[in-house]
Amino acid sequence: MRAVVRRAGKLICEDIEELDPGPGQVRVKTLACGICGSDLHALHHFDHMVEMGRRSGSGGGDLDPKKDIVFGHEFCAEVLEGGPGADRFKAGTRVVSMPVNLSPTRFDAVGYSNLYPGGFAERMILTEMLLLEVPNGLSTEHAALTEPMAVGEHAVASAALDKTSVALVIGCGPVGLAVIAALKVRGHGPIIAADFSPRRRQAAEVMGADVVVDPAQTGPHTKWADYGVPMTGEAMRAALFSGQQTGRPVVFECVGAPGVLQSVIEGCPMKAQIIVAGVCMEPDRIEPSLAINKQLDLRFVLGYQPDEFAQSLFNIAEGKIDVSPLITGSVGLDGVAQAFVDLGNPEQHVKVLVTPNG
Amino acid sequence: MRAVVRRAGKLICEDIEELDPGPGQVRVKTLACGICGSDLHALHHFDHMVEMGRRSGSGGGDLDPKKDIVFGHEFCAEVLEGGPGADRFKAGTRVVSMPVNLSPTRFDAVGYSNLYPGGFAERMILTEMLLLEVPNGLSTEHAALTEPMAVGEHAVASAALDKTSVALVIGCGPVGLAVIAALKVRGHGPIIAADFSPRRRQAAEVMGADVVVDPAQTGPHTKWADYGVPMTGEAMRAALFSGQQTGRPVVFECVGAPGVLQSVIEGCPMKAQIIVAGVCMEPDRIEPSLAINKQLDLRFVLGYQPDEFAQSLFNIAEGKIDVSPLITGSVGLDGVAQAFVDLGNPEQHVKVLVTPNG
Repeated sequence: MRAVVRRAGKLICEDIEELDPGPGQVRVKTLACGICGSDLHALHHFDHMVEMGRRSGSGGGDLDPKKDIVFGHEFCAEVLEGGPGADRFKAGTRVVSMPVNLSPTRFDAVGYSNLYPGGFAERMILTEMLLLEVPNGLSTEHAALTEPMAVGEHAVASAALDKTSVALVIGCGPVGLAVIAALKVRGHGPIIAADFSPRRRQAAEVMGADVVVDPAQTGPHTKWADYGVPMTGEAMRAALFSGQQTGRPVVFECVGAPGVLQSVIEGCPMKAQIIVAGVCMEPDRIEPSLAINKQLDLRFVLGYQPDEFAQSLFNIAEGKIDVSPLITGSVGLDGVAQAFVDLGNPEQHVKVLVTPNG
Repeated sequence: MRAVVRRAGKLICEDIEELDPGPGQVRVKTLACGICGSDLHALHHFDHMVEMGRRSGSGGGDLDPKKDIVFGHEFCAEVLEGGPGADRFKAGTRVVSMPVNLSPTRFDAVGYSNLYPGGFAERMILTEMLLLEVPNGLSTEHAALTEPMAVGEHAVASAALDKTSVALVIGCGPVGLAVIAALKVRGHGPIIAADFSPRRRQAAEVMGADVVVDPAQTGPHTKWADYGVPMTGEAMRAALFSGQQTGRPVVFECVGAPGVLQSVIEGCPMKAQIIVAGVCMEPDRIEPSLAINKQLDLRFVLGYQPDEFAQSLFNIAEGKIDVSPLITGSVGLDGVAQAFVDLGNPEQHVKVLVTPNG
């Protein structure tokens, strides 16, 4: 079958061998698969990414970055045939799935595996018990956004928000936009969103941000005061004595570049919670004594739980979250390499979908 | 009255002017006051400490490190006389207090104030509504440990411990020992404690650590496995499938030196919670992607709530926590400067009490 293979830091469109579905597995035809920021990073820095996974103990123990990989973990697919014992879905059923293959002895990330090709291939092998049928009427393109939107669902579910919490989203790429959507679907507000890119600020507004900030013009943390959030210990005591209800302020760090975490620690209100959802792959510098004086809570989040993934599909299918503003392009397999380049420019794209079968 | 004044990085024992108690205030005679690690730091780096407080918004806005300060915020004192409206305590009553003075317009930290001398003075001005009477029979020396033990109480109360959580305490100075005591008073175990100093490891054992580790010999994080804590994602899944109960592992970082936080992020199990109680005053380097891969929760804690301060006094007074192993020395006002030097050696001391009235 045709696939985009990552080999030695390059993306090559070629024919690859195909596995047959084993017990409990299903062969699917890939209908659409998003390109993730992690894929962009992994193209050039896969060795480092694999090493971090190994050092953290989070997985990928036998992943070999020197061997071929087919990326793609944000997909919607069509069931072709089940392996032994896998007969729950009729051929033709459209499905989404958490991008993992489970077996009694292995746990493989689909899209970051030497064994299982991801969604930048015509077909994939998935695990039947993880498949969720796409409800009738939901478009394939929108269903493919289930995975990235689940990342936002998990980040927001991890936060200690209450009704009076003000939320600040730093970075309005796909992760930040998914966070804004997950906040909005809960009816949560106000939501402040910050990004240097006009296009991404516009997307943030469409997804539900109440106010958007260009950090080049306005410090994002100046906006807390507009919503009455006390910034200092003295202001917190004054608020307390005046009976003002002030929930814990929450910052969602969705950039993941060196220096951003420290800028949040410096700028955020006392006793804020920082949900770190942006993956900074380089070492970073912070001032712990500021974090202690402010009594900050830093929660580093990754991925999602199965129920959050299902909730994400539900939110999209029921029209609670409209993902259409996020989809800014579509390419076939032969357009993937160029799309990886184009995605480097935030003005050009938010999310590009790959349609391996045209 | 006699006091130890901090002036230009030196401690000078001399006579100072004395305030009279204002409305709601009480004049007390200082019976005993501990020397805190923060005092040692503030002696030489008070400018920086004040600057960090100011930058964080946590307080000390009008504190001038160039002016005289009398340190001392871990005290037990005897009531001498009340100011206007402050008649709740008879003269002679022994009291402890959170080291703050409240007024309708000001919030001053006793011991870090240009206005109010701390406990390294013969007498202090305190706020009546914050005074707690020392229960009959509790020694003055033990009562003076209420404040540092409250720091441990707060750190442990801030942790997401459950019955099956294993706790690792990094650093067995006064903060680490207070954490161990607060864990033990809850009946929590196992407690692993690590410190380079034999004396502090011994104190940790006496306070209730189940196992002590010399990091020069054994990596503290090798001990998790002894208690069945799964370190990796794979081990967590295996534990889950085998029905093993594993509470969230909790690390209490009680050192506060550069590099310690990163070593905890590197060494700790997946999904651990890190309670950062050690105050690192310098910028520090971390690898956020390890923290994300491990899905860590970093909680920076400081001080305590009024109820935790009261709980700390109760724990000591009821014999639930025996603080005697922590008290390793006692000096008069003229011995304070030398005690600051001696406390630099962890083999020599844990906690030194100052007795300003002999």
